[in-house]
Amino acid sequence: MSDQPITDITAYMRDLGQRARTASRALARASTAEKNAALLAIADELDRERAAIAQANRTDLDAGAAKGLDAALLDRLELTPGRIDAMIEGVRQVAALPDPVGAITDLNYRPSGIQVGRMRVPLGVVGIIYESRPNVTADAAALCLKSGNATVLRGGSESFASNQALAACIQRGLATAGLPADGVQVLATTDRAAVGVMIAMPESIDVIIPRGGKGLIERISREARVPVIKHLDGICHVYIDDAADLDKAFNIAMNAKTQRYGTCNTMETLLVDAPVADAILPRLGAAYRGKGVELRGCQRTRDLLADAAPATEADWDTEYLAPILSIRVVDGLDEAIDHIARHGSAHTDAIVTEDYSRARRFLREVDSSSVMVNASTRFADGFEYGLGAEIGISTDKFHARGPVGLEGLTSVKFVVLGDGEVRC
Amino acid sequence: MSDQPITDITAYMRDLGQRARTASRALARASTAEKNAALLAIADELDRERAAIAQANRTDLDAGAAKGLDAALLDRLELTPGRIDAMIEGVRQVAALPDPVGAITDLNYRPSGIQVGRMRVPLGVVGIIYESRPNVTADAAALCLKSGNATVLRGGSESFASNQALAACIQRGLATAGLPADGVQVLATTDRAAVGVMIAMPESIDVIIPRGGKGLIERISREARVPVIKHLDGICHVYIDDAADLDKAFNIAMNAKTQRYGTCNTMETLLVDAPVADAILPRLGAAYRGKGVELRGCQRTRDLLADAAPATEADWDTEYLAPILSIRVVDGLDEAIDHIARHGSAHTDAIVTEDYSRARRFLREVDSSSVMVNASTRFADGFEYGLGAEIGISTDKFHARGPVGLEGLTSVKFVVLGDGEVRC
Repeated sequence: MSDQPITDITAYMRDLGQRARTASRALARASTAEKNAALLAIADELDRERAAIAQANRTDLDAGAAKGLDAALLDRLELTPGRIDAMIEGVRQVAALPDPVGAITDLNYRPSGIQVGRMRVPLGVVGIIYESRPNVTADAAALCLKSGNATVLRGGSESFASNQALAACIQRGLATAGLPADGVQVLATTDRAAVGVMIAMPESIDVIIPRGGKGLIERISREARVPVIKHLDGICHVYIDDAADLDKAFNIAMNAKTQRYGTCNTMETLLVDAPVADAILPRLGAAYRGKGVELRGCQRTRDLLADAAPATEADWDTEYLAPILSIRVVDGLDEAIDHIARHGSAHTDAIVTEDYSRARRFLREVDSSSVMVNASTRFADGFEYGLGAEIGISTDKFHARGPVGLEGLTSVKFVVLGDGEVRC
Repeated sequence: MSDQPITDITAYMRDLGQRARTASRALARASTAEKNAALLAIADELDRERAAIAQANRTDLDAGAAKGLDAALLDRLELTPGRIDAMIEGVRQVAALPDPVGAITDLNYRPSGIQVGRMRVPLGVVGIIYESRPNVTADAAALCLKSGNATVLRGGSESFASNQALAACIQRGLATAGLPADGVQVLATTDRAAVGVMIAMPESIDVIIPRGGKGLIERISREARVPVIKHLDGICHVYIDDAADLDKAFNIAMNAKTQRYGTCNTMETLLVDAPVADAILPRLGAAYRGKGVELRGCQRTRDLLADAAPATEADWDTEYLAPILSIRVVDGLDEAIDHIARHGSAHTDAIVTEDYSRARRFLREVDSSSVMVNASTRFADGFEYGLGAEIGISTDKFHARGPVGLEGLTSVKFVVLGDGEVRC
């Protein structure tokens, strides 16, 4: 499908939104068996249409190369056979996850005689705005479908043809299972004006999840007229306490920085308690140097690591997403917690200590979406946490916080069971 | 304290917000014992300062009478000795509630060896904007304090002196218990521009809860730059199914409409399944007439109740908050669910039936914050649900839905306990 010019974007989006709203009612009622059948049918369609998907992807890759996209972007855009396998397997895995919808919890009798509980329900219509990785189309559609939501997807313009090919498979899969094809809609336009309309239709879209760079997310958060589940910076810290087991500290500090550099749960600043600085920093410094990590430190750090550059105030506030690490020697737990409160991004922070009371204080007092004792920040992930899947990581406190799985795509309502009770 | 003109409202609000943010950190760390001690100290201060509170309230009442406020508004504004008693008792009851903060749930081992759970945490700073009832000042401050949040309160201008007197007691109570007085701040100005600044300070205020008329809530929702927990209409329905026990149906339909007329969980539209309309409507009609309730009905209703006025389309969409009831005869459950989806406000809806499968479908398919079987809609209330208290009822799906108690004023973070684990 080519990008046909749409003359009235507002009318196009309103119609699409209305169809999503209608489809969301059917999806909210759909049984677990129906939703799983649709997910498996979608996986089968994706498998059957590999050639068409690859051809559409080739169109995008050629256009991207002609536009001069850099190698990293073209790599993210490419749907290799292996990536298509992984996408199909991902959809099948979502079918195997437990269905959160309809679960009733805390159903208790009240003195009036009524029973009151909470039932988990879909949010309604989820809008997802993402950049060029086209596999998000299938991942996000699968998670929203399993949680009983309709989805409106707006992918990057570079992956337009790929996304249209994937959408066709998804919609056929839905129809095969007897669910409305409008349950998953991918915008048939790359017109940026559509995004402005999409984030301001509370009558049709209940929540927006932006996935992409900070600029995209900030713009959407600023302009949206519906709630946004957003992920901004990941400025993550590891604090090595003076009661740390220094072998655990070494392993965690190395893993948190060097296992992958470009992820949001990678450590960006290492805090070291002064009494153990000379025991741990030279050993860590040598190992980071061996991995090619550039070090920037406070004066006390530089007294121990001669090759560390001086860290500026800006370093403490920077998410490098690169083999760069800032290091600060602090005087105890309070200074570490203060540093994290002032410079962190409330994403993921860890303490390494064998001291029970300090571990307990760190867990309670650090206000981040994940707080850890003696574990690498790299564990902050929906799969590692056992959520089964992840549609993103929220750095907000409202509604969903940290890795967002199926449950983050739902809400609850109260259910009341009575036998004719009335209020006095 | 009089309403001193503040020359730079933005600077005033930013300073107040910054102080709230700082105080929120101390309140988040405060132990259950410290928070309870503060609540009891606040209750004692309110008790000790009854004369000052009554005098400030008299100032407001005199100014209100001079401005020509009507009797209903003046009544809402008045702090009688009985209302002061109730306010003090309310604060003491909040002290007796369980502390939600710090509770860890679902702490489970993962295959990697880490233990992952969730800890309940305060939201941070809660802003509350309310109209003239001054007892909200103490109620809201108590709930926010117990849930570990700092609070910024902006009450109605008519109750300015009363709110200042209450704020002085609250701040002294906080200080007595060693908690920051800035943990609860009441705006020292009635300038409306302060509201505009208050709802657009995400760096200082994490959520706004408006309590008041629909106009206030719509304006705040439209203009806020932070999340809003809001309560709009309560267009509640009772559907009497053809398998209903008609005595239960009679009692519930009477209670839901006539127990109180002005509350959001009062029934506004009665739906009656056609096969039982002639068995129940004449009996209900006579009883409503005896209570002075004006009836408006569809044609089939009017065939049975000669004195019912014709209902227009607008009636189905109206929250009367008055002794008026619209009645519609429908053909079965599907038509009832459709009517509720089209005309309801997703607040509270009930079915009366002895049919198991229809009860189950109603619970699952009606997308309202409270869905009920064989119980009066009037039960939709934080106290009746066992939440211990209620700061409002949310008609949103995001974050908090239905009656909002202490838990709705909190979020969760992930806690990870390890023994040196790193990610592979």
